[in-house]
Parts: sequence; C-alpha cells; structure tokens
Amino acid sequence: MIPDHSPFTIEHSVAMSYEQKLKELKIELPLPPKPLATYVPAVQAGELLFLSGVLPMRDGQLAFSGKLGRDLTVEQGMESSRLALLNVLAIAQQELGTLDRIIRVVKVVGYVASAEGFVQQPQVLNGASDLLVEIFGEAGRHVRVAVGAVELPRGAPVEIEVIFSIS
Amino acid sequence: MIPDHSPFTIEHSVAMSYEQKLKELKIELPLPPKPLATYVPAVQAGELLFLSGVLPMRDGQLAFSGKLGRDLTVEQGMESSRLALLNVLAIAQQELGTLDRIIRVVKVVGYVASAEGFVQQPQVLNGASDLLVEIFGEAGRHVRVAVGAVELPRGAPVEIEVIFSIS
Amino acid sequence: MIPDHSPFTIEHSVAMSYEQKLKELKIELPLPPKPLATYVPAVQAGELLFLSGVLPMRDGQLAFSGKLGRDLTVEQGMESSRLALLNVLAIAQQELGTLDRIIRVVKVVGYVASAEGFVQQPQVLNGASDLLVEIFGEAGRHVRVAVGAVELPRGAPVEIEVIFSIS
Repeated sequence: MIPDHSPFTIEHSVAMSYEQKLKELKIELPLPPKPLATYVPAVQAGELLFLSGVLPMRDGQLAFSGKLGRDLTVEQGMESSRLALLNVLAIAQQELGTLDRIIRVVKVVGYVASAEGFVQQPQVLNGASDLLVEIFGEAGRHVRVAVGAVELPRGAPVEIEVIFSIS
Repeated sequence: MIPDHSPFTIEHSVAMSYEQKLKELKIELPLPPKPLATYVPAVQAGELLFLSGVLPMRDGQLAFSGKLGRDLTVEQGMESSRLALLNVLAIAQQELGTLDRIIRVVKVVGYVASAEGFVQQPQVLNGASDLLVEIFGEAGRHVRVAVGAVELPRGAPVEIEVIFSIS
Repeated sequence: MIPDHSPFTIEHSVAMSYEQKLKELKIELPLPPKPLATYVPAVQAGELLFLSGVLPMRDGQLAFSGKLGRDLTVEQGMESSRLALLNVLAIAQQELGTLDRIIRVVKVVGYVASAEGFVQQPQVLNGASDLLVEIFGEAGRHVRVAVGAVELPRGAPVEIEVIFSIS
C-alpha cells in the first residue's frame, strides 16, 4: 500500500533488525544443530514456521544433561532452555535467511526432564521465554506450554519446540 | 452473500449464542488466569487461536493437585480437566470478546500427571472433551492427544492446551 | 496455470499416486481406529489437517504395550511407531478420500513410554519417520518432537500425533 519512496518505508528501513539486536545484546548464535534422523529442522506451512524439538546443544554436543530436581539446579535448567532457544533461532535464521522475516513468536512448548516432585518447569523455561521477549519485544510474547517429561532424548534436561508466524 | 435483511440472517441472529448456552447450562466462567511469566494467554495467527497450557485454577489457586493413580481418583481428574477447560474458555472470551467468534475447537492436548501404572488419561480428559461438545455441539468436536506426564507445573494434576479456529 | 491438455499435466497424471506407492511397498493400511470418546480422528483448519494422537493398533487391539527400557526393545519400539503411523495414514485416507491430497507432512510429535534412564526416543520414532519418507519422498520430511512419557493411554508404548498440509 505504501510506495517505496514513502518516508514510512525509509523510517522502517532504519529500524533495528533482529540480527542487529542480537549483536547489541552480545548474543552469538550457535551453528544450527543437525537432525538426528530422517526429519528436518523446519517446515513452513502457510504463514507458520514449525520447528523440530531442539536440545541445549553447543558445538555439536549436549551442553547439559540430567534431570531437574536431581542432577541440575533451576539456574542450570534456565541456562539450558536459553541455550536450546539460541539453537532454535539459529535454525530459524538458516531457514529464513534472516530473523527479520519473523512476525511473531506464536508458541513455545517446553519439555523439562523432571525427577519425582520437581514442579518448577515454568521457572526453567523462563530462560527461553525471557530471551524471546528481550530480542523480539512485543512480537516475542508467545503462548507457552510447560510439561515435565520422565526422560528426553540423549538425556537432555530440556527440549524446546517453537512455532513462528513469518512473512 | 446473503443480504442483511434476509430472513436467513434474522434466523441466524436469533440462534443461541455460546454465552447464552453457558447460561442455560448454568456454567459460570472463572476469571481468566494470569500467566506466570513473560508469556501470554493467547496468540492469534491467521485463523487459528493458540492458547497457553492451562491448569485447573479457581480464584487464583490450583483447585486440585497431585497425581492420578496416587493422589486423585479418575473422577477428581475429570473435574480437574473440566475446570481447566473453563479457564480455557475464560481466556478465549477475554481474547475474542465473545465465544461466538469460535468456528471450531480444533485440537486439545491434555497432559495428565500420572503415577506409575496409571493409563486412564483418556477418561480424565473426557471432563474437558465432553464439556466442549456440550457447549459447542458439532463445532466442539476436536482432535485430542492424551499424554501422561511425570510432573506438571505447581503439582497440577492436568494441563490443557487448546487450538481454536476463529472468525 | 498449465492448461489441461498440457503434456505436463499428462506427465503428472501418470506419476505414481501415494496409494500406488503403498501397493508397491506391499503396505496395507489397517482399518482406521475409532476414537475412545467424544473427540474425532481428524480436523481440517485451513490448509492444515490435525490428527488425534494415535496408538499402535491392529484389528482394534493394541499390538504392543509396556515401556521402552523395561518391557520392549528398541526394535519393538520402532515397529510400534511404524504401526501407529500406518493407523495415522488410514485416518488421513478416510478423512481425505485419498492420500494424494497430502501436500506435505508438516509435523510429527512422538511420545514414547519410557522407563527411568531410557533416552533413545529418536531411534524408536524413526520407525514412523523413515516410513513417511519412504512413502512420500521429500514431501514426507517433517519436523519432529521426540518426548519420553511416564505413561500413555492403555499402556501403549508410543503415541504419534501428526499435522499434514493438504490441498
């Protein structure tokens, strides 16, 4: 609707991109993790981008393992979910070319490997949720589902599944 | 396609709204629960309305806690899932203005906190599923996923995640 | 865009349908399982087809039961997820008339009933994922979420939840 020479377009073009925001926050994305089998990291369907479940990987290795409430503190759990989310963003960037195609973070499902009696899944997942809002602002506010899992692949403490809406 | 003065429109306008249906069923919705962190209760993407996972809250407190197969009977589990669903509807109403914008209940994922050996997750979730059909009729028939969780946030016995299609 | 008499259309029309592919692979779909309650096997919303969680059913009975890491080998788990996926395809075929309306397998969530210490959920789910690629080729490559569940309905070892995009 707005012609290319419009001042609104110019104003928009000087707004900070999400990649610039990452730099400002001194956040470096990891290399996107490779799927462990015949599935793929991301699939686009209409305006939605679905991502595979992502573990807290660093340099091709799990950076944390074990269960919350037994092997890891809540703080370590938060670091795990934050790291898993960085891997999510690395996948999205690889798939879309740029994070600026993200219109909204729609949904985060977080599975937390939980020992008997551990019920602080929400706190653990704030490591991911808070980072989303830090980077994307209002567009980073998502619906969330926090669940305790008896075990997760490779012994990971958290697994994060995200849906974005994209342009 | 049908002009505003058409008898079909009039007929439609006197059909019972979902809010009226709730009254007829003597169902009062609770105050919508507040998210525990930086996430939000609902996000719209295209024609879909995604909701956060919802616990069986009443007056800002968990009304039930513990695991099925250890602390709660199946009947209490059904009451829990029914109550969680009322909270879901309260969120949808708050988000949409009216439940009448709901075209279809698309999907319900129900996580049931389950002690070793408890496999009646479907019965527990019927408390939510049956109520959806009671209120929305055919539009309330949804796909469902019933899963046993080792633990859920705050020690809740059930957590319900819903997707609606909306106008 | 391509007129009906185009050679491309003809070429397309002689391409192997997914039902023919199933025959070639000597795969026979089971009767679609019946839901256990008020929910339905599939709901279409826009271009997405959502399916209910599906267990490894054969002739109306669970073909496998128990947990991975205690009652079943990884190979039996893979057979279970493959069988659950055949039930998924039976539901999709019943819903759509033909599997040829499937444009893409978007997402698979696989819940694996896991004893303490069992972390090979991905291998178990490869029984389903590999079959999807065998049948649908590139269109069968999906995002995947692999989760360990403490218990699943009826004591099933796996439950598979699928989203397709359809025409």
